[in-house]
Amino acid sequence: MTRSLTILGATGSIGRSTADVVLAHRDEFRVEAVVGGRDAEALAKVARKLGARFAALADEKAGSDLKGALSGTGIAGGAGSSAVIEAAERDAELVLAAISGTAGLRPTHAALKPGRRLALANKESLVCAGAAFMADANRLGVTIMPVDSEHNALDQALAAGRNGDVEKAVITASGGPFRTWTRERIAQASPAEASAHPVWSMGNKINIDSATLMNKGLELIEAHHLFGLEPDRLDVLVHPESIVHGLVQWSDGAVTAGLALPDMKVPIANALRHHERLPMDLPRLDLAAIGRLTFEQPDETRFPCLALARAALRAGGAMPVVLNAANEIAVEAFMTGRIGFYGISECVETVCSTFLKRNNMTVPATVLDALAIDEEARDMARQVLSGPAEAKPLLGAGKRR
Amino acid sequence: MTRSLTILGATGSIGRSTADVVLAHRDEFRVEAVVGGRDAEALAKVARKLGARFAALADEKAGSDLKGALSGTGIAGGAGSSAVIEAAERDAELVLAAISGTAGLRPTHAALKPGRRLALANKESLVCAGAAFMADANRLGVTIMPVDSEHNALDQALAAGRNGDVEKAVITASGGPFRTWTRERIAQASPAEASAHPVWSMGNKINIDSATLMNKGLELIEAHHLFGLEPDRLDVLVHPESIVHGLVQWSDGAVTAGLALPDMKVPIANALRHHERLPMDLPRLDLAAIGRLTFEQPDETRFPCLALARAALRAGGAMPVVLNAANEIAVEAFMTGRIGFYGISECVETVCSTFLKRNNMTVPATVLDALAIDEEARDMARQVLSGPAEAKPLLGAGKRR
Repeated sequence: MTRSLTILGATGSIGRSTADVVLAHRDEFRVEAVVGGRDAEALAKVARKLGARFAALADEKAGSDLKGALSGTGIAGGAGSSAVIEAAERDAELVLAAISGTAGLRPTHAALKPGRRLALANKESLVCAGAAFMADANRLGVTIMPVDSEHNALDQALAAGRNGDVEKAVITASGGPFRTWTRERIAQASPAEASAHPVWSMGNKINIDSATLMNKGLELIEAHHLFGLEPDRLDVLVHPESIVHGLVQWSDGAVTAGLALPDMKVPIANALRHHERLPMDLPRLDLAAIGRLTFEQPDETRFPCLALARAALRAGGAMPVVLNAANEIAVEAFMTGRIGFYGISECVETVCSTFLKRNNMTVPATVLDALAIDEEARDMARQVLSGPAEAKPLLGAGKRR
Repeated sequence: MTRSLTILGATGSIGRSTADVVLAHRDEFRVEAVVGGRDAEALAKVARKLGARFAALADEKAGSDLKGALSGTGIAGGAGSSAVIEAAERDAELVLAAISGTAGLRPTHAALKPGRRLALANKESLVCAGAAFMADANRLGVTIMPVDSEHNALDQALAAGRNGDVEKAVITASGGPFRTWTRERIAQASPAEASAHPVWSMGNKINIDSATLMNKGLELIEAHHLFGLEPDRLDVLVHPESIVHGLVQWSDGAVTAGLALPDMKVPIANALRHHERLPMDLPRLDLAAIGRLTFEQPDETRFPCLALARAALRAGGAMPVVLNAANEIAVEAFMTGRIGFYGISECVETVCSTFLKRNNMTVPATVLDALAIDEEARDMARQVLSGPAEAKPLLGAGKRR
């Protein structure tokens, strides 16, 4: 059966892997629309390859480039945020939402249409606006399928029972490049060292989040919304081989787990077809060849961002938005050498506690509310980073080069 | 909701664990009947503890002992095979079938009643009469829940998709006491050495099957019938820690797995309530504390019984019955010092190939057919073991003490 599919974020890493999955199953999917950010050439290319009907570029200024690149293909094109929203709203049974960052919030939300299936890779829809987003999805009868390998694994492991019988849902962490480093050595780490992710090849920002374990904190927040599990039913386990991605501890003592080789095409294929599997010609997991899988508790002393994210999840309200926004600004500051590695967690902590004191923490009722809080928190993070001398370049201790 | 439950094999290891599970949930179960083998005292005790309405002992001669032990309790008792069948047939929503060996075949089959749920621990119902047994179960709308930790884990892992999308279902093996031994050393192994199972505490016969890996071969045959998976979709993986019990490789590259600490109460509780979990107050799996899980390919050169079982499964027909019968006789001969360790596989191989030449291999159509073939194969195994000198005490090579 052919299903119509729209890909939001078609030129990014997830989008490109999705295109590979779709091209391996041409008769299973008809591509309605593709959305890209700034690269008109790349978007036109994927639109042609997938035979999309419509291509939308977020960057309005590159609109004429897109028109040029699409001329003669019969593919309609548009640029700017209204074109992106149009792409998200066009008739399609399935939408894969992989625009990264808060830029993905509005288009992903616009993709919530009655009865649709949404393969979700945009973290912010859950981290920043999880309650509003999931309420709208439920109201509209949208089935959300997580694309993230950890949540996708949890989704599969959760099939073995009822949500109420889950004692603990656990996502795994590779542990990042600093897993075995002392706190002292981590404090001195350079952006290049922090970007060297041992397993996954991802963007820079995501690599830093993986080094701080903030990525796992954000994933706990996502899991909370995706699966309706309270903070104390969610946990993180360090697993350097990144083969087991998620585990569910049931109330009868049994555990189910989701495993896969670390290739995003596996969870993407799974999210596109859910429990009806899409056959993929990929290397198979060979546990005998791998030989052993190891596990350890995460260390929140060396990786305070994980503790901060847990606290934000427990605090609820707008705290996860604030945490995420402050983290983005702080990571940027770390990557440009303005603060040390522990400056990231210190900045996040300062912004979160300041926000907690100053604001009445209510859950953002809409995506727009979430975006407003996001902006406010980013401003506050920028202030913290440019504040009085003793709280600025020294953030994160360590003698930075 | 209280469910009525009958326990066949209530005084054995699985039966006693089941009693523990039931006693931890007195309001969830009402025990209709309990069945034991020879120990009238033990059966009366469990019947009283569980408040059963009826107790049946297989051994007719111990009938008066049972009557004495039950006098004044208000529990009805009976002895002999007709009492056992009566117990299996009495009204109960749930039957846990844990009589071991071919002795369990008829009572377990008698427990197949319309709409019932059967928690199955009797291997022979599937190994010897799998096709007939499953056909009757399906016809009567009986839901079969496997109690074996490996099949129970597979059952949970299989919840994440459709049977047709399963590429491979894998059961794990601890590897037994000889996992790291050379073939030469294994050839000299004594019954005591073969009985030293590293993880599970089980009966002697089962321990020897674990040392030869025949247990895994028999489990493959069970899995074939339980889940309707062809032989080439079934596999074995050695996993000394016995934490992961079963894994399912899906066609999209994802893998789901069932894990648990090695405590039979976990799969028993799961089988009694299936995907509605029965909360159990047992130690939880702590992967960080365990630290690592290891995996390796089984070695069919050192453990030829696994290859023989696979061949019997592929051959189909009555071959699994023959394999199982020959194995029981050969294990007995090994345990009493009449043959060496490799004499077990040699005897099984001789009986299987002789049978293959002499008989038209059709699938046993009924449990009685299976029992007749079972008897024939046992006789043949006894002949092989008592045959011409060069094929007898020398079976299994090695200078036996």
